[in-house]
Amino acid sequence: MTAGRFPLAPGSTIGILGGGQLGRMLAMAAAELGLAVHIYAPEADSPAFDVARAHTVAAWDDEVALAGFARAVDVVTFEFENIPAAAAHFLAERTPVLPPPRALETGQDRLAEKNLMVRLGIAVPPYAAVTSAADIEVALSRIGRPAMLKTRRLGYDGKGQTTIRHGDDPAAAFAAVGRVPALLEAFVPFDMEVSAIVARGRDGAVRAYDIGENRHIAGTLATTRVPAALDPAVAASAVAIAEAVAAALDYVGVLAVEMFVVGVGPQARLLVNEIAPRVHNSGHWTSDGCLVSQFEQHIRAIAGWPLGEPVRHSDTVMENLIGDAAGNWATVAAEPGACLHLYGKREARPGRKMGHVNRLAPRPSQR
Amino acid sequence: MTAGRFPLAPGSTIGILGGGQLGRMLAMAAAELGLAVHIYAPEADSPAFDVARAHTVAAWDDEVALAGFARAVDVVTFEFENIPAAAAHFLAERTPVLPPPRALETGQDRLAEKNLMVRLGIAVPPYAAVTSAADIEVALSRIGRPAMLKTRRLGYDGKGQTTIRHGDDPAAAFAAVGRVPALLEAFVPFDMEVSAIVARGRDGAVRAYDIGENRHIAGTLATTRVPAALDPAVAASAVAIAEAVAAALDYVGVLAVEMFVVGVGPQARLLVNEIAPRVHNSGHWTSDGCLVSQFEQHIRAIAGWPLGEPVRHSDTVMENLIGDAAGNWATVAAEPGACLHLYGKREARPGRKMGHVNRLAPRPSQR
Repeated sequence: MTAGRFPLAPGSTIGILGGGQLGRMLAMAAAELGLAVHIYAPEADSPAFDVARAHTVAAWDDEVALAGFARAVDVVTFEFENIPAAAAHFLAERTPVLPPPRALETGQDRLAEKNLMVRLGIAVPPYAAVTSAADIEVALSRIGRPAMLKTRRLGYDGKGQTTIRHGDDPAAAFAAVGRVPALLEAFVPFDMEVSAIVARGRDGAVRAYDIGENRHIAGTLATTRVPAALDPAVAASAVAIAEAVAAALDYVGVLAVEMFVVGVGPQARLLVNEIAPRVHNSGHWTSDGCLVSQFEQHIRAIAGWPLGEPVRHSDTVMENLIGDAAGNWATVAAEPGACLHLYGKREARPGRKMGHVNRLAPRPSQR
Repeated sequence: MTAGRFPLAPGSTIGILGGGQLGRMLAMAAAELGLAVHIYAPEADSPAFDVARAHTVAAWDDEVALAGFARAVDVVTFEFENIPAAAAHFLAERTPVLPPPRALETGQDRLAEKNLMVRLGIAVPPYAAVTSAADIEVALSRIGRPAMLKTRRLGYDGKGQTTIRHGDDPAAAFAAVGRVPALLEAFVPFDMEVSAIVARGRDGAVRAYDIGENRHIAGTLATTRVPAALDPAVAASAVAIAEAVAAALDYVGVLAVEMFVVGVGPQARLLVNEIAPRVHNSGHWTSDGCLVSQFEQHIRAIAGWPLGEPVRHSDTVMENLIGDAAGNWATVAAEPGACLHLYGKREARPGRKMGHVNRLAPRPSQR
């Protein structure tokens, strides 16, 4: 497959690895641009199947299925960074995979992520790689308590992490995360959490959305508010950080960078918490607050199309509907200015993201 | 089936008759609300199939297929008024059909439409029902020339109509429209064409979008501009007309009413040209110019959900991409403020609607 196939013409097929809500929203964005979608996911009841022309239900290591998928599509992307890198590399030998598998691998490994930030001169919380309880003891003596112990791989939404406070036993914490290679991170007494959502095109062009202010509950994103109550110079720095990461990864697509803000006003400092090489929950506000959503922007990028202008027309607060909260759909649907999104998941388990609502404060036009 | 099933809970299935671009955009709007979609269409390559959980390819008179479709869905709607009324009635005996089949029948028959307007005291161009060239001669002597001869049924996008000018032979005109029951209408020297797009809920609540100003080329809608350059009192009258029609039809869903505007300023007069008992091309601007699109609004209405607020956040100009014009997709995609929609149709025939673009002038938010 050569670069000459890009930009992909309408009617081309976007392959998406993963069939959750992110794949579902990507699929609808692709359809709005006249592109067909083929979803690959191991789960037979994946919500994204409902809005895609084709889907394949197969395991990540099923090379026959992967090869068939590669033949059926014009480009492959992913909705989630915990796709096995081997699958991405297998596909990349057969068809373009964007963002590049290297970005996927970096996003899968908290240590690689942190090391990249250090190499780029981007501030992160003090950290140490650990592979044993003894390592943790040593690292704690340098980093102090409380500290966060996070698995290097397969972490999201607060999974695979635990806090080590004064009096906590490092061995118990190591057991709690499964005795796998991990990272000990200083606990940052932050004033705010923010996300930078940027897109980078195949031509290296970059577009950034306004910075969003995140609140987490129990390790899971609860709300994103845009604009963030951030000094303009600090907001510009947050964008610059995300752009530097995207350039360093030779990235194509939408990239999310979550950061801690320490301090207030123009003197506030930014520390990168984590990156996600994909569309991100903290960018869901763009579906209603902007002319071009993060989902459309990602499809444009990987299809080799010009990026859209990420102009925001309304102040927006995104709230996740988690577990039973989605049962309030009728109330939310009746709220003026509330844009409801439900993911079509058949079962509302505790902690499961079932939907979200974007509450907008637009400036009504003059009649 | 009883009314008690409404509002339909997320996970319910919306059945849509017709698989074109309107069905496709309705299907995506339903999916955003967590509703599943089943499309019924005779054409195997229907664009709406790409974004629906299920589809049935069968003829409109296939009662086995229709009965199976009725069992598979929780409510039936249609994307197009030229669905045979017999199919709608067959389905309505088995499952709720909304808008009501009576509205479908009225929208299919220009004479029934005109008679309804007269009954409601709504102005229309002078007209006469004709079934022969001799009828046309008589009607012309009353209505004058030029006049429009339009088939009573199966007309859209300027199809099934012809103009009779001075010197034209009425018999030739009657032959040109296929010698079927028709309507002779006075040619209205209008100053503007406008559309009122309103939604009516199962509870009788009504919401209206801002009035759009339409331009047609060769009988097909070319652009819709919102707001229309209309006196506010005249715009309010246009909305009131559409609301009166919706109430008279005991309507549920989105209804479009196209009108001629004769004169300018507060003295301008409105004459109803035609109604469409469905989402309408002249409402496509709502997908990007409003928080709640006409497609979502229609789904909300037929699902028994509360209607959304049809607030407009941006001035918008919708332009249809017809035939080869969709070949300009790359140029349009690069335009700031242009929201591109392509319908996934595999072949760009002359006159075929391939997509549209909404050009927005939002008021950027303060950082």
